[in-house]
Amino acid sequence: MEFDLIASADLLGRTPATLSALLDGLPEPWVRGSEGPETFSPFDVVGHLIDGEETDWIPRARIILGQRADPRFTPYDRFRHRTRNAGRSLESLLAEFAQLRSANLELLGAWRLGAAELDLPGTHPTLGTVTLRQLLATWVVHDLGHVAQVARVMAKQYRIAVGPWVAFLPVLSDREAPR
Amino acid sequence: MEFDLIASADLLGRTPATLSALLDGLPEPWVRGSEGPETFSPFDVVGHLIDGEETDWIPRARIILGQRADPRFTPYDRFRHRTRNAGRSLESLLAEFAQLRSANLELLGAWRLGAAELDLPGTHPTLGTVTLRQLLATWVVHDLGHVAQVARVMAKQYRIAVGPWVAFLPVLSDREAPR
Repeated sequence: MEFDLIASADLLGRTPATLSALLDGLPEPWVRGSEGPETFSPFDVVGHLIDGEETDWIPRARIILGQRADPRFTPYDRFRHRTRNAGRSLESLLAEFAQLRSANLELLGAWRLGAAELDLPGTHPTLGTVTLRQLLATWVVHDLGHVAQVARVMAKQYRIAVGPWVAFLPVLSDREAPR
Repeated sequence: MEFDLIASADLLGRTPATLSALLDGLPEPWVRGSEGPETFSPFDVVGHLIDGEETDWIPRARIILGQRADPRFTPYDRFRHRTRNAGRSLESLLAEFAQLRSANLELLGAWRLGAAELDLPGTHPTLGTVTLRQLLATWVVHDLGHVAQVARVMAKQYRIAVGPWVAFLPVLSDREAPR
């Protein structure tokens, strides 16, 4: 599917409500369970998405739109949330994510981006030249990947409880190793 | 994690709102996109979950609780929805799923199941003896697996649009072949 700005903003706007429907008020073991060492729990995912709102998507879009001589992105810290959110409740993180996302989408809309802006380049520290259009498509896919992760991680908490049905539930054997 | 009836009913109650947050009002290409031939689109997933409400989980629980001499389950048709829902809108399916799920959870609560009932056996046509507890855990995991699938299938619609970022988005290469 070709990138579409309106549809992308629509999709990005859905993620806070999707995660709240899945997670808000859930008992602690479901919120904190993961797929093993060095993998994210649902709590970690919400923290990671907040990091994205504050340090990744919009800051990188600003670098591209600023049309500097060297539009190189600042590397993104995938583990910033670990210290940032120690002691926080999931409910407060969900509320904060919803507020940050809403403000960022308002800003994105206010930019009134057209094809010329969407074609502008930035420099990714590893991937090289990318466009604003690709950055915004990646924002959408990144969200959806983490929604899928939250559902998968939750499912795995019942891996033993399903008994012989484990053979018919492929979600329980997805990502046996972190990727 | 050990099976818990209250938490399981809580989780099952979240799925309609989760899918509505992701899908309700989404443009048609996002609703109908799949991962290739013989794979489910988000529209198909909602239809498949409706089939589960009508022909799988509660009917099988009734067979177990009926304590017949041969508590063998009726095989489940994974493709019933294809003919059933031709011409239906996603919105009407989401509303129907929410209504069926709500009624089924009301029934589940009214049964006031204790440990003795949860230990009762049924006979799965392929897997052999399973318990009511395992059936209900499987209902939860089945839901979460399909929520993960919907998010993954949606993400893949932007596989080309993300450009070089495809290398950093593992959700785009999950389930390259149907499982």
